[in-house]
Amino acid sequence: MRQGDTLCFENPPVIRAFAAVGGKREAGSPLKEGFDRLYTDNYLGKPSWEQAEQALQTGCLEQLLAKAGLGPGQVDLVFAGDLQAQCTASSYTMRGLDAPFAGLYGACSTMAEALGLAACMAAAGLGQRVLALTSSHFCAAERQFRTPLDYGGKRTPTAQWTATAAGGCLVSPSGEGVRVKAVTFGRVRDYGVKDINNMGAAMAPAAIQTLLHFFEDTGARAEEFDCLYTGDLGRVGSRLLARLAENEGLALPPHRDCGCLLYGEGPEAVGAGGSGAGCSASVLAAHILPRLLRGEEKRVLFVATGALMSQTTFLQRESIPCIAHLVELESPAAKEREEEP
Amino acid sequence: MRQGDTLCFENPPVIRAFAAVGGKREAGSPLKEGFDRLYTDNYLGKPSWEQAEQALQTGCLEQLLAKAGLGPGQVDLVFAGDLQAQCTASSYTMRGLDAPFAGLYGACSTMAEALGLAACMAAAGLGQRVLALTSSHFCAAERQFRTPLDYGGKRTPTAQWTATAAGGCLVSPSGEGVRVKAVTFGRVRDYGVKDINNMGAAMAPAAIQTLLHFFEDTGARAEEFDCLYTGDLGRVGSRLLARLAENEGLALPPHRDCGCLLYGEGPEAVGAGGSGAGCSASVLAAHILPRLLRGEEKRVLFVATGALMSQTTFLQRESIPCIAHLVELESPAAKEREEEP
Repeated sequence: MRQGDTLCFENPPVIRAFAAVGGKREAGSPLKEGFDRLYTDNYLGKPSWEQAEQALQTGCLEQLLAKAGLGPGQVDLVFAGDLQAQCTASSYTMRGLDAPFAGLYGACSTMAEALGLAACMAAAGLGQRVLALTSSHFCAAERQFRTPLDYGGKRTPTAQWTATAAGGCLVSPSGEGVRVKAVTFGRVRDYGVKDINNMGAAMAPAAIQTLLHFFEDTGARAEEFDCLYTGDLGRVGSRLLARLAENEGLALPPHRDCGCLLYGEGPEAVGAGGSGAGCSASVLAAHILPRLLRGEEKRVLFVATGALMSQTTFLQRESIPCIAHLVELESPAAKEREEEP
Repeated sequence: MRQGDTLCFENPPVIRAFAAVGGKREAGSPLKEGFDRLYTDNYLGKPSWEQAEQALQTGCLEQLLAKAGLGPGQVDLVFAGDLQAQCTASSYTMRGLDAPFAGLYGACSTMAEALGLAACMAAAGLGQRVLALTSSHFCAAERQFRTPLDYGGKRTPTAQWTATAAGGCLVSPSGEGVRVKAVTFGRVRDYGVKDINNMGAAMAPAAIQTLLHFFEDTGARAEEFDCLYTGDLGRVGSRLLARLAENEGLALPPHRDCGCLLYGEGPEAVGAGGSGAGCSASVLAAHILPRLLRGEEKRVLFVATGALMSQTTFLQRESIPCIAHLVELESPAAKEREEEP
């Protein structure tokens, strides 16, 4: 059922299985225990970073299918995307999976876009086993969006670090698992930020916009949620989110950012935090969904943000349009509680 | 209802309005009468081809909203995509439309992907006014995928010409208009073709694959359809499609290709035909949908094909994975016929 921009599912679809894989730096993550596979070589034995990302996404897909107990022929539809020019990590990965495929692009917001669309298809009965899958690779992304690594560009304190990681979910109309209660697809917002090394600042307005819509559409209150997970505003964008919420008079649930969670605050912290289509996707599968499954949190918002520029638009001195998609998730424990007499 | 890979809608959603715009070469198209706006300057008054494509897509959006009688605030969701790296033509266009947006990438298949997803959302009651919108620009695409125009690269006889065009549709759960009866999302196929100047050969196997699924899933027969419109196999890919169908023992409806239709066979013909995300989209809106509305055709298949490589994967000597999405369209005249006593 549509309420404003928000789609509320009367029979919420279910995340039946999920998987996360990561690279070398992610193997030192505070969340490492939640990953299904961690690679010690960021080339994954391939001759290029681009092919390494395909292998990373393929590795995530294999883990996901194995955990779900599915053969490749049993997938109804895959929504997948990544940061490589023209989404090639996903398209080439899909050569190895004989299943219907719809390619998406939402930069770092792609996982929420994919999960939202998968939930819509499952809720409508248009797919029994729908996958949402995204990835990013630090080295491929730097070459794509900024400068080749060999150039040795200096990173500013506001710069985020693209995660070498992938995450995936299997969504079904019913069954055991975390439930997708609602989805809000975001609207593009551009506050005129032009610094590709400060994406947190560019993306925070999009996140606030989507949150304003969600709370207005549903009438929900911040205290109904255990956590607001954004992905990936990093430290700079997270501070701006709090400021923008205050300006708007919007109360937020306790806030954590996937980019900050992935690399932590300790010695393994990187710049202003992590980012990339694989960052929020892997934190979702390695941390958020397991917490919901264990009942440590009952109801959370997952809001993935994306900066929709390219290297060409940056060189042409365009500002950065951004988007944020929201997915409301509920623990199976919350359902049991509801069903008690 | 899902039958194999094919989604058959019990209450088919309706294309309530549609629009097509084109550039200078397209102004000489045999289909020019069907276009809503034709620009005589491929820069559209902008300083770069990339910005020109944004203006082109914006022009198409304006025409579509005007024909549908909608204000910008009345759109529930937009599915849009293009060929520029990281889909920037669409993302930047969406700055100007305050509406929920999901970015897609399917190369030249993007219009069928967008229309298919829009139909799913409308059929499921998850959107009353869902847009599908795609564009391409010859000059932006050449720089993106091959070489800058200034380089003056020689074109081979198998090369297709990326259309400078955009097309869009408004899909609603019910009302007057052409009905979307079924959608088949395609599977990635890669027959090892590496020549980026012969995309027709790369894409034909994906088209056959999707057609095989559709006919097997639905039990429909070729003679039930007035036309099979592919977009965009061009002349080379169209010949291969016929050959592959013969090999598979698959009877096809009378076949037309959007890439061949757009520039015709006369003196305005270009290479092996047109291509690009805006080619099949504009031919759909300028030719196919008007024919269905006028009752000149009752039931057709629209199968848009996409070559999912990038300049990086080409330079890394990868082959070209391809995909084809199918949308079954029915004339309102066919519905009236059904309803006769």
